[in-house]
Amino acid sequence: MKKITLSHGSGGRLMHELIKGLFIKNLDNPYLNKLGDSALIHAKNKDLAYTTDSFVISPIFFPGGDIGKLSVCGTVNDLCVSGANPRYLSCGMIVEEGFDYSDLERITLSIKQTCKKAGVYVVAGDFKVVEKGAADRIFINTSGIGELYDNARISSSRIRPGDKVIISGTIGDHGAAVLLAREELKFKSRISSDCACLNDLVSSIISSDVKFMRDPTRGGLATTLNEIAQEIGYNIGIDEKTLPVKESVMALCEILGLEPLYMANEGKVVLVVSSKSASRILSRIKKHDLGRGARIIGEIDREKGKKVYLKTKIGSSRILDMLIGEHLPRIC
Amino acid sequence: MKKITLSHGSGGRLMHELIKGLFIKNLDNPYLNKLGDSALIHAKNKDLAYTTDSFVISPIFFPGGDIGKLSVCGTVNDLCVSGANPRYLSCGMIVEEGFDYSDLERITLSIKQTCKKAGVYVVAGDFKVVEKGAADRIFINTSGIGELYDNARISSSRIRPGDKVIISGTIGDHGAAVLLAREELKFKSRISSDCACLNDLVSSIISSDVKFMRDPTRGGLATTLNEIAQEIGYNIGIDEKTLPVKESVMALCEILGLEPLYMANEGKVVLVVSSKSASRILSRIKKHDLGRGARIIGEIDREKGKKVYLKTKIGSSRILDMLIGEHLPRIC
Repeated sequence: MKKITLSHGSGGRLMHELIKGLFIKNLDNPYLNKLGDSALIHAKNKDLAYTTDSFVISPIFFPGGDIGKLSVCGTVNDLCVSGANPRYLSCGMIVEEGFDYSDLERITLSIKQTCKKAGVYVVAGDFKVVEKGAADRIFINTSGIGELYDNARISSSRIRPGDKVIISGTIGDHGAAVLLAREELKFKSRISSDCACLNDLVSSIISSDVKFMRDPTRGGLATTLNEIAQEIGYNIGIDEKTLPVKESVMALCEILGLEPLYMANEGKVVLVVSSKSASRILSRIKKHDLGRGARIIGEIDREKGKKVYLKTKIGSSRILDMLIGEHLPRIC
Repeated sequence: MKKITLSHGSGGRLMHELIKGLFIKNLDNPYLNKLGDSALIHAKNKDLAYTTDSFVISPIFFPGGDIGKLSVCGTVNDLCVSGANPRYLSCGMIVEEGFDYSDLERITLSIKQTCKKAGVYVVAGDFKVVEKGAADRIFINTSGIGELYDNARISSSRIRPGDKVIISGTIGDHGAAVLLAREELKFKSRISSDCACLNDLVSSIISSDVKFMRDPTRGGLATTLNEIAQEIGYNIGIDEKTLPVKESVMALCEILGLEPLYMANEGKVVLVVSSKSASRILSRIKKHDLGRGARIIGEIDREKGKKVYLKTKIGSSRILDMLIGEHLPRIC
């Protein structure tokens, strides 16, 4: 079989063969293998976190990842920034007729490896095929269930003036990598997406001192900070000179007139922590491979408001608005 | 706002306005309204059923339903045929740039009404926009979590020779309605999809006497019976003259050379029950609005095998294979 046909999504024999021969074979786990209408999982009288995300990224393969890896990391990260230990995923694929079987296999293997590394299982799946021209290659939706950590108390209502804002590493890597991977652009530096599952990093620092976390994906760090400011009703001040940005990413942004603050990240977390615990938490984050570039980048203002201010390198201050309009379509 | 633009999926301000102004406003519930990265739900030390399904149906509006209603019913039904009480849904939409806002609103209201009727909540969502031509109007993925009924013992391993097979009503209605709704076909009868949430019907009959259930969607009743036969390793015999098919559906099938047995259903359940409980369960199903047309249609053979036999009206017998190839693309 070289190409996916409409018959592979019809519910009939070819679909069953594809599901058994590709998905069950690779994503092998006792929940999925039963092939029931639903997977059966057990919850131990716990609070669960539940989330969903669709992935429409173009191109589907890019330096540092692919749509399969991204679709696992994106949902794992949404769960862990909610203070939950990600456990079970669902995965629904919509594929365009004529899609290469070898690409589907590569994406499936990527999902397999990413799940293994993150310690999660794909327990429920769905596969649909639409006719040529009705979708652009492949779209993937994942949803996920995680178990809340007993010692997690993640809530924006706990944020107070003076609390510190931490970012776990350089910003804009994913957006820059995808931009470069699009054929039109030639650039001498190789920029890799930061696409990674954050659950191991988050589990190493989770405690009641961590008041809030969010992963700054679409819309970038600036949009995430604006969401936080709007939720808490205090301004947030960010210091530009502390913002970690890779030189190659900054160079690309300068050429194209883009701001790394609005560019997507897929392996970073923003944390709000109490002032007194900030340096201790920062040093714990920096011990993790995915947190080496972490920095304290600002703090919650004493002033009521819903704005984010950027203290620039030349000493001035400007409002950092939420992303308005479209920065870069199909970034995730 | 008349049309959806790429900016509505960018993660920025326009997306936030759309989410609050349309989705939160209409799908209003305490889990969703927190707008966190994940919804927090509580599981009471129970077994949970977890499932996912993507909907790519064309056309998106059809007699008896639309893609919104379908995306709720499809996932609710997958949960309840697993013996679970559906509770929480996630909903991820992928929309083509230029899609009418009024259609998105109509679909959202349909999701709202269907959820209300089924007693479930959309607690997590995602909204993506792709450029014109990269998707055909709108695709929706839902996933769902249900709590297993204490008295449910749904497992194909409990099926024994002599057990009866029940279908809850007429077959092929959904497939026929969608076929007719496609512009090319003009037909004097109006055929409505059977699209409905089955959780109320299922909860009224759930007991240990119900050994297995499945909803015969893509691939139709014939494919579902083949799946069961393959799982249990016994042949299944079906009596054609007992099969409930609406006259209008049969007429359409005869004209087009299609078989209702392979046509999709979106509001029907196939049950396997012990022989002694069959008539009692059948009469309970028939008391429910969605089960008035229920019939015992066959039984599990004493003969080992993995085939489905159809005893035809003229007295002969033929093998009813799983759907091979494509019957009708984008039926759900």
